[in-house]
Amino acid sequence: MISAELRRAPEKILLPRGFSFSALAAGIKASGRPDLALVEIADGATAAALFTSNRVVAAPIEVGRAALAATKGRVRAVIVNSGNANCATGRSGIQACERVCREAARILAVPAEEVFPSSTGIIGVRLPHAKICAHLSQLIAARSASEQSVRDFANAIMTTDTRPKIASVRFRAANAASTGASTGDVTLLGIAKGAGMIHPQLATMLVYIFTDAASNRRDLQALLRDACDESLNCMSIDGDTSTNDTVLLLASGASGASIDRRQTRKKFSAALTAVCQSLAEQIISDGEGVDHVIRLHVEKARTRQEALTVARTIAHSALVKTAWAGADPNWGRILAAAGRSGVPIDPARVQIFIGSQRVCRNGAACQFNQQQAHRALAQPVCDVRVELERGRESVQFLTTDLTAEYVRINADYST
Amino acid sequence: MISAELRRAPEKILLPRGFSFSALAAGIKASGRPDLALVEIADGATAAALFTSNRVVAAPIEVGRAALAATKGRVRAVIVNSGNANCATGRSGIQACERVCREAARILAVPAEEVFPSSTGIIGVRLPHAKICAHLSQLIAARSASEQSVRDFANAIMTTDTRPKIASVRFRAANAASTGASTGDVTLLGIAKGAGMIHPQLATMLVYIFTDAASNRRDLQALLRDACDESLNCMSIDGDTSTNDTVLLLASGASGASIDRRQTRKKFSAALTAVCQSLAEQIISDGEGVDHVIRLHVEKARTRQEALTVARTIAHSALVKTAWAGADPNWGRILAAAGRSGVPIDPARVQIFIGSQRVCRNGAACQFNQQQAHRALAQPVCDVRVELERGRESVQFLTTDLTAEYVRINADYST
Repeated sequence: MISAELRRAPEKILLPRGFSFSALAAGIKASGRPDLALVEIADGATAAALFTSNRVVAAPIEVGRAALAATKGRVRAVIVNSGNANCATGRSGIQACERVCREAARILAVPAEEVFPSSTGIIGVRLPHAKICAHLSQLIAARSASEQSVRDFANAIMTTDTRPKIASVRFRAANAASTGASTGDVTLLGIAKGAGMIHPQLATMLVYIFTDAASNRRDLQALLRDACDESLNCMSIDGDTSTNDTVLLLASGASGASIDRRQTRKKFSAALTAVCQSLAEQIISDGEGVDHVIRLHVEKARTRQEALTVARTIAHSALVKTAWAGADPNWGRILAAAGRSGVPIDPARVQIFIGSQRVCRNGAACQFNQQQAHRALAQPVCDVRVELERGRESVQFLTTDLTAEYVRINADYST
Repeated sequence: MISAELRRAPEKILLPRGFSFSALAAGIKASGRPDLALVEIADGATAAALFTSNRVVAAPIEVGRAALAATKGRVRAVIVNSGNANCATGRSGIQACERVCREAARILAVPAEEVFPSSTGIIGVRLPHAKICAHLSQLIAARSASEQSVRDFANAIMTTDTRPKIASVRFRAANAASTGASTGDVTLLGIAKGAGMIHPQLATMLVYIFTDAASNRRDLQALLRDACDESLNCMSIDGDTSTNDTVLLLASGASGASIDRRQTRKKFSAALTAVCQSLAEQIISDGEGVDHVIRLHVEKARTRQEALTVARTIAHSALVKTAWAGADPNWGRILAAAGRSGVPIDPARVQIFIGSQRVCRNGAACQFNQQQAHRALAQPVCDVRVELERGRESVQFLTTDLTAEYVRINADYST
């Protein structure tokens, strides 16, 4: 269901009510670029969250997860720093994170547990918490509910990203106008960062989604999981799952429309999935060194998990990804990757398509126009379809080529 | 137990008795380089073999496996072509392979099942069996038992390899001189090819090991599996398991020494492991675009399988491999890869060493000399050690960096 063209951050940003944003440069990044960002929700929000499945998790994940448990999903502010992941920093990393939350809570006059922390950047370096704390008053004072402040937030959470990632959607809630406070409109705004170490397993790098819909915590969590399963969980740039992956969905309720109503819930679910898909597409197309995005369709699998396993194995094959970098329609490498996925496929029943052309029939070579397949793969986005003929389940997986530029970005000494 | 320096193909090749070799250019490779090779065993040999675990297997694997079953492991000749993998070629690929075996068998006046076939090269292109058959008489007539013919064989089975891979060992069998035919010396000669699609799971690309020891088939198979488990199964260049992986061990018995004797068996096992390790080292150091070889030690795991899982995840991480390309001591990426391996490690107990230095203590940063770690990684071979503190099992895994040159080699259109 992903749109025909990968969406870029929109010209026009729709603002959900109840949220204000700000950002500044606190000197965490050596480059002097913005590296500290805030979201504040004056009346608080209900939160749903997904975190990395990596056994190695950063300090803010531990602190944030505990805070959400303590407050039963109540969030008053989010503080994000880039330039330092605060991961593999031991006990002192936890303390540094807690200090930042406490200082922000003191200024906002709220409990420390209602401040949700995130960090992204290099692993294994101590978080400069004093620098961050020294800038919090200024950061909080500068907050506003404007398109520019959203752009500033999106810009300040970037690391190797070359552009901010923003998606927003508005829909009319069913019967919403019947309550006094409601205008009947529900808005969702998503902001993300991520360009490398992208292979989310439950969540992806840093994704924040804000809505003015009202919801209980349990429904919000279920809706978030469903939306991510078809978007942020179906993509991979390099197969490396980050230690800091976080998806946070905050519902302020300021629109007066509740997703308890079945019709509104349905529209909200579709809008949430659309925002997550747009952010996934923006992350993938800004992947480190990426020249070509591949929309990989694995079809006719026995189960969705089986389709996902085959898709992930193909998407992580260095040989397949380098062939894509050269727009080489080398389907033998795709077939070989499927063959080592662990799924008991019958090679003689496998069909492979590049663009609109069949390039492999029943596991063997067939006549096709090489130049046409090459041209399809040379596009910024190309569809590759693998049919297993084992059942009716399928998955769509977003992935990328592997270029010399990716190697250059990640091989630089002292990253 | 791998030697301190990666071994290159030796100046002096030791020849096991009973084997003769030849090679020529049959026009399968567009370059006109040698692409057809033969081993003949005048009195036949007992065979042990390991094949790829990929569900997609090439025609010669199917034909060869069936032939070994039919003859109960009797081999009279091996025919290898490079330049074409005869994989994903359907029913006609099987027929093409069988035609080659039948023609060779006719000339040698032996049953077709005693001719063992191998192919390596591009997937999905029909094997030019007529070209091969037209050259078989000349190939068979030219066979000889000489160092030069061994070198010619090793050269003709190469694809993207930049150098031939040969290892040989000789040992004195226990009490061997007591039988009339025996000189008391047992020789093992191994020849391999492989530079990409290297992540053997049971076997690696093409490896042939010849010995003049005598053995029954069952013992030979057990010894081969044990030797490979510690060598060819513990390495990875790009994480892609080939469709054509084959390890074939042929025992002519011409030395008169049998491995039924416990002392001889022990020496033979050590010699076989040494040959496999040397070939593994030669394959890894000739890996596509490889600048740095990493000897990865995963230690203090609960089980060997657990150590292997962590080693494979680290060895396949694009982020870890690109850091190694830049000789960047970025241990955070190694820790993050271990964390997503699926093994329930406790990050707070993980130690990481680069060269002789500890770079991560109890899952967190510790003081170390960055320049020294950089220099260690800049060597052609560097040791990286990861301790899990979960038990007593360990594994040594040979792997490589991921360079822009690897991408260039594999991204070229129409490979």
